[in-house]
This record gives sequence, C-alpha cells and structure tokens, in this order.
Amino acid sequence: MRHLLDTRSLSRDEAILILDTAEEMAATQQREIKKLPTLRGKTVVNLFFEDSTRTRISFEAAAKRLSADVINFSAKGSSVSKGESLKDTAQTLQAIGADGVVIRHPASGAPAKLAASNWIDAGVLNAGDGTHEHPTQALLDAFTMRRRLFGGSGSAGQSGDASRGRDLDGVSVVIVGDIAHSRVARSNLWLLNALGAHVTFVAPETLLPYGARTWPVTVHHSFDTALREEQPDVVMMLRIQSERMHAAFFPNEREYARVWGLDGARLAGLGDRAIVMHPGPMNRGLEISSGAADSDRSTVLEQVANGVSVRMAALYLLLSGERTEQA
Amino acid sequence: MRHLLDTRSLSRDEAILILDTAEEMAATQQREIKKLPTLRGKTVVNLFFEDSTRTRISFEAAAKRLSADVINFSAKGSSVSKGESLKDTAQTLQAIGADGVVIRHPASGAPAKLAASNWIDAGVLNAGDGTHEHPTQALLDAFTMRRRLFGGSGSAGQSGDASRGRDLDGVSVVIVGDIAHSRVARSNLWLLNALGAHVTFVAPETLLPYGARTWPVTVHHSFDTALREEQPDVVMMLRIQSERMHAAFFPNEREYARVWGLDGARLAGLGDRAIVMHPGPMNRGLEISSGAADSDRSTVLEQVANGVSVRMAALYLLLSGERTEQA
Amino acid sequence: MRHLLDTRSLSRDEAILILDTAEEMAATQQREIKKLPTLRGKTVVNLFFEDSTRTRISFEAAAKRLSADVINFSAKGSSVSKGESLKDTAQTLQAIGADGVVIRHPASGAPAKLAASNWIDAGVLNAGDGTHEHPTQALLDAFTMRRRLFGGSGSAGQSGDASRGRDLDGVSVVIVGDIAHSRVARSNLWLLNALGAHVTFVAPETLLPYGARTWPVTVHHSFDTALREEQPDVVMMLRIQSERMHAAFFPNEREYARVWGLDGARLAGLGDRAIVMHPGPMNRGLEISSGAADSDRSTVLEQVANGVSVRMAALYLLLSGERTEQA
Repeated sequence: MRHLLDTRSLSRDEAILILDTAEEMAATQQREIKKLPTLRGKTVVNLFFEDSTRTRISFEAAAKRLSADVINFSAKGSSVSKGESLKDTAQTLQAIGADGVVIRHPASGAPAKLAASNWIDAGVLNAGDGTHEHPTQALLDAFTMRRRLFGGSGSAGQSGDASRGRDLDGVSVVIVGDIAHSRVARSNLWLLNALGAHVTFVAPETLLPYGARTWPVTVHHSFDTALREEQPDVVMMLRIQSERMHAAFFPNEREYARVWGLDGARLAGLGDRAIVMHPGPMNRGLEISSGAADSDRSTVLEQVANGVSVRMAALYLLLSGERTEQA
Repeated sequence: MRHLLDTRSLSRDEAILILDTAEEMAATQQREIKKLPTLRGKTVVNLFFEDSTRTRISFEAAAKRLSADVINFSAKGSSVSKGESLKDTAQTLQAIGADGVVIRHPASGAPAKLAASNWIDAGVLNAGDGTHEHPTQALLDAFTMRRRLFGGSGSAGQSGDASRGRDLDGVSVVIVGDIAHSRVARSNLWLLNALGAHVTFVAPETLLPYGARTWPVTVHHSFDTALREEQPDVVMMLRIQSERMHAAFFPNEREYARVWGLDGARLAGLGDRAIVMHPGPMNRGLEISSGAADSDRSTVLEQVANGVSVRMAALYLLLSGERTEQA
Repeated sequence: MRHLLDTRSLSRDEAILILDTAEEMAATQQREIKKLPTLRGKTVVNLFFEDSTRTRISFEAAAKRLSADVINFSAKGSSVSKGESLKDTAQTLQAIGADGVVIRHPASGAPAKLAASNWIDAGVLNAGDGTHEHPTQALLDAFTMRRRLFGGSGSAGQSGDASRGRDLDGVSVVIVGDIAHSRVARSNLWLLNALGAHVTFVAPETLLPYGARTWPVTVHHSFDTALREEQPDVVMMLRIQSERMHAAFFPNEREYARVWGLDGARLAGLGDRAIVMHPGPMNRGLEISSGAADSDRSTVLEQVANGVSVRMAALYLLLSGERTEQA
C-alpha cells in the first residue's frame, strides 16, 4: 500500500490487512509496550488545512508510538495565507524529507491530487477531505464493530483474538442523520460493502447526498421504520450542525431530536447485541441522548481508542521499510 | 500522589517530597545529564484552554527531559469550539492513551472535576484554573525560597544541598497586589502555611478576595506598614492588569506604582537577607521597578528555571512506575 | 561560532565551513541515516514573532534529525501579547534551559540584541529579522549555487563532492525585484561578496534600499540590460507583494510581470549553465512564470531541501560539544 486516500478503492483483503495489523498494534499497547521503534528516523507531517484537534492528536500519538518524528503544520497563518498553492506546500514537505503526510483539507480530492502528483514521494494519508472521505474513521469504525460483534469476550471488546481475519459479512449497519455532508458516512459505506455488511442510510431527503440512490445502500426516511425493517447490529449516529438542521426545515432542536435522534425508546428497541456508534464530538440531547451515549451499547470511547491502533497500522503499512522499494 | 490539583490539600510531607525530588532533578540538570529515561513511552498532554506560553513550555521542557512524548492541545480552534464538553475532550485524551494531563482552564475547579471523574485514568496536573490555584507556581516559589534562604551557598541559590528536607518554618512572606484575582497568591498561601511560613497579604480592600479574613493570613492595606511590621524575608509582587487597576480606583499607573509598587526606596528598606519574587511576566515600572526586578535580591529568573525542576518532580512523582498500581 | 546573526560579519572561511558541514549533513541524509545523535539532550526553541511555517518546519526538521528536542514558541497569543518584553521572553527561554534559539522577528536587529545581551547563554540563529538579514536563506542559496555550478554531476546537483571547499569566485548573480524590503537580498549580497561572487541588483528605483549604491553591488534599472551586460550564472527572483507593487507605481500585475518578471523569453536568453532561483513562496505569473519556475534551470525545490542540510550544519556548529567551552 502506498497511500490511504479513500475506502472506495480499498479491496476486502487490504481492509482486513489494515484491521489485523491494528489488532497487533492494540495488543502491543495492552502489553504496556507503548513505544515501538518501527518508524524511528521517519518524519510524519500533519498538514491540516482545517482544524481538527481530535484527529490530529490521534495521528500524532500513533506516529510517536511508532517512534516517528512529528511536525505539525497548520495552514492557518502559514504561507498558505500568503497565496502558496498546495503544490508549493507539498514540495516544501518533500524538500524537508517528509516520509508521510497526513492531510485534512476542505476540498474533496485534495489528498488524491497530492498523491497523484509527482510533487512528493511521501505516503499520503487522507484525514478528511471536504464531503468526500475520511478513511481512517471508517476503518476504526469497522475495527470497533468487528471487536464488539465477534470479539468473543462479550461486550467489552477488549480482546481481538476471535475477530482476526474476519470480515463483517451479514452485519446490518444503519447510519442516521446528515449523510449529505458526511465524509464519515461515505467512507463507511464503501468499506462496509467491501467487508460484506449491509448499509442503510436514514435521513430526510434534504440531508441525503445527490446520487445516493445509485450507491449500494438502502435508504429510509423514517428512523423507526428503518429500525424495524433493518434489524440493525449497528446504529451509527452522525453529528448534525445546527445551520444544516435549519436548512433541512427543522424548526428547532427538540423537533430534530424527536424525529431523528437516538433516544431511550429507540435504544430500548434495539436487538440484544446491537451497538451504538458516533464519530464524535456528540451533540448530547440532539442526535443522541446522554443515556444512549453513555450506555453499555455505546462504543464511542472505544472508537477513539481504536483510532490510535488503526492509525498506527496505516502509518506502519505505508511508511515502514518495504515502501522504499515500491516507490 | 495521583494528581496535583491544588496546594490546599497538600500535606507538609507531600510538599517536602516534591521539593526534595525537584532538588534531585535540578542536580541532574547541573551535571549536564539533560535527558532522563524515566518517562520514556509515557504521553503527556498539555491541555490549555487559556493561552500561557511560559507555563506550557516549562511543562513541555520538563516532560521532554524525562523522555516523555508531549502532545500540545490548545483549545483555541479545536473541537471545543464546536461545542465539545470537557468530558468529551477528556475521554478523547483517555482514548489516545494519555498518561498525564496538564490542564489550564479559565474555570476554577475544572482540573478537580477532571480528576474526580471516571473519564480518565491519567494523572491530572493543574497548571492554573480560574482564580483558584496554580500549584506548581507555588511549589517553585517555595523551592526558590528554600534555596535562597537556607541553601548555604549565599545568594546564588545554585546548590540545594543544605535545604533538602527543610520546611519554611518562621519565614515571613509578604504578597502584594491584586490578590483577589491571583491563583498564585492562593496557592502560595496554602503551601506556605503547610510549610510553617507566615503569610501577609497587602492590597487595597477592592483587590482582596472575599473571605480572605477567614484564611490563615495577616492583611495590611499599607505596603509600608506591612514592610515595617512584618519584617519580610520574602516580598512577592503580583502582576496587576490595567483594567483591574482602574476598577480599584487608581487614576493612573504612576499613582498605583507609588502606593503599591516595589520601588527603590522600599527595596532599600528590606532586611539583609530578604528576597524579591514575581511570578512574571512583570510590568516593569508598575508593580515593580526595573531596579528591583534586576537587583541581586530578585529571584525572578531562578523562579522560572526552578519551575522546570519542580514540574519534572511533579511529573515524575505522578507518572512514573508506581502509579499504575495505585490507579 | 557562537551565534548566526547575519552574513555581513561572516568571513569567507566561516562561510565555507558551514557549506562544507552542510555537505556532510546532506551526505548522511542520502545514505538513509536520517537521525544523528549529535544534539541529543539539547533543546532548540523556535521563537517566532512572525508566522513562517516553511522556515519553522525546516529548522524543526533539521533539529529533530540531530536528535534535539524542539519547542515551538509562537508569539501570537503568548504572554508577549500581555506586554512581555523580548528580555523577559529570552530569560524565560534561558531558564528552561534552551541551548539554541531560532528567532524570527519583525524588528531588524532583534536577534543581535538577544545575542549581545547577557539574558541568555543559548546560541542564537537569526531566521529573519525585519528587512535586515536572513542568513540561513543566503547560505542555502550559496550551497545550491556551489552544487549546481561546480558539483560535477551536471544539473542534478545531487553530489557535492566536487564543490567541497570551494567559494563562488567569479560567479555573476543577478537579484531581481523588491530589493528594498528583502532581507534575503541583503544576506545574499554580503555572503556572495565574501565568497568572491559578483552581485547585481535589478529593481525600479522605488524598490531599491536606501544606501544600496554604497554597497559592493552593481545596480540596473532594466532587467533586459542587466541580463545582457552581466551575463549571469544565477538569476534570483524575489517575491513581490502586491501592496508594494502598487507603491512602486505599477498599475497591475501584468505590467509588473512584463517589466520585472522572469518569463519564457528572458529564460531562453540565459547562458547555458545559468540557473534560476527563488526563495519561495512564488507568485507564479507575476515575478516568475510557471515555465521558468518548473524548468530544468530552476533550483527552487533544491533550495528548500538544501535548507534542511544548511540548518543542520548551523545547529551542529553552534550547539554541539565545543560550544560550552567557548561560552
């Protein structure tokens, strides 16, 4: 693997390789081996054109545990604001010897543009681009599902032994909310399809992406209907931003929560092994009730912890030794 | 010790343990052993909801000398501004495996809330919360007093051998200025009392904290009277902010300096061994004259240097090996 | 060498020592030895009072490859904004044990002031001060010229073996554009003179620095005349800022580009071995056409890559072992 730009082009085997490698990474962390020498001497640049402290520190922690040097490059107040192009920025990173570039960018396709160019030899990891994709988020979500649903040790998801090598064949995943603007939903859709899961989008028509009906997904306009008909193993709630809530003709938060929120009643109606996911940060009381967010079914915290393991795996697979020969 | 949240709850023995450990840390630095392997593989997060470059880089330097990985998290422009709660932020830090969290927050009590929660296993170090406390500042002040007053090697304060194990019994400390808004004054009050010193606050009534008269402190409204009656070994000047100066009915800076500033005349009247302290950054010419700030009595630079040793000690005591068993 | 404040006071032998050391650094990088233990335990502070991500990450990468700890100190939102003076900031850095301070400051002379003071023992590296100097930029430019013109391996500039120990005797360098506001032009002028090169400034009268005619430089007001008469080995284009373009009475960008830009026709007229330089970030289509920027003659990317080697050399020479005895 040379770059990680999306999940749409990721094969089932590649996805399982990343997930299994993430299991190895998680296992070293649990054995209190917090620092691996794997990427010593490598330089990882966090190139963030949008603020995202959570994603940035997750990648930073992952890279540092692999002993890489990390340089943070926030495009705010940088020479980008003096009119520097992505090309010039990339060439600067090339020139300082970056081995990996973790990029978040408001424009869909910017990471792919970077990777397709001859501006840079570094491995490119997409940390979120516009409304396009956020592949490590989908991978950590799949990792979390695999551990929770097949981990063997019950709900804790502490051990991944039983889930290694597995895909998500037959798992039913319902994704609810502002699909239109969600790169998380898109990345999950493609990855979950590759892994054999069945995906359902639940949203008002105004919050569905244009063209969604041509994708391999079931669409519902009623959350309750979707819960009844799809019998989900996983309910993934998306963050709604209030300006988009209003654009979708919801008069207020209470009304949005009533129609599209995961509340106690809906939580109680889920199947025995069903889990509740959210990419964070959550709007408690809006798309998800505090009861649902903090329930045993919720995997919100595991998702964040698993994010470090998955990002360690991606950095390892892209940047460790073998890469030089492939470049 | 599990957290360092305040000095009010710190016992005399705990305080002396930190100060003596800081002596060890300072000694390694003087022997040109700048990097200790003690916290290798540990992750320290600087979680700053208020800007404070000085305190942040002091903790960062301390953690790096102990070989910890440091991740800086400035709440400006972070997901906090997207409405994320302290709880969600804490859980993110837990999930990325933070071993220690150094937190500065505008709300008094935020570090204690973090430590009391089950959101996080990390050791919590208060780096200043609202008008409540700033315990490492008070500890570095006490460390500086101990070295200067009992260090044995005269005014230089270079050696701490003679001061090890000592408290500050009988030392008279006069703290002058905007006590009301000063977490430094509060942290010093409790720590100095635990160590046996006698503390005096000198301030206009409008800059005294509500309830100060119930604390173990002598209060004066005249700087000159306080100097005469308390015969201080230590005069600690606090930073005044101009908006608060005006709120305290001072028409201008000159008038404030005349009544509440440490000028040449007051400096000349101090006892032979008396020292002058300031937590920085100083308003030269306002609460302290340049002559006083740069005199031999001034410990301003030692305070900053000692800050690194004290923070190394606190990080070491909270985060090194033994902590896991206690958690 | 104790500090690197300017190139004006740099002797020919000192300059060649830095350039040759940079060749050693570049050679280790090419042998895939990315991490040298030279500065382990040393702390380098990037003290930036102006934004400059490119220069900051170049120094950060250089310091990290030498195994130094790096602390970034951006003066935005720091205690500087609370009124702290350069002196107080410097003393803070001294107190936390900084071994090297890389300073960028809007005021000409700030690095020299820092170095001349007794505020700090650290080696001071000027990373750009006002319109005064930017010595590491000039050094990386000279390094690039030496490699390209005398490197032996043709245009690639990949090997520096043939250029070691050499100066730039007899080389003709034409620098074009906003000389008045360019610390890059000034640093190049002094360094190139020390190395035996002949320097020409090409600019409208309004963009020439006051006093330039007393300097060891030829001045032209016509780019085409300069190219014809000076037969340059090196054409160095400077960045023009649009507000200064207007102040120099250019009605629009097209007119500026026509008169002062390096376009295809001027590029085609250069001598066989002539190279094109730019300190970046470039205004493509304004002071330099994209064709010129991306041509084989262009050294723009090598300049950035060489910057890391030159900065490694400067950090090594200033901060490694010998320095302590000299201090």
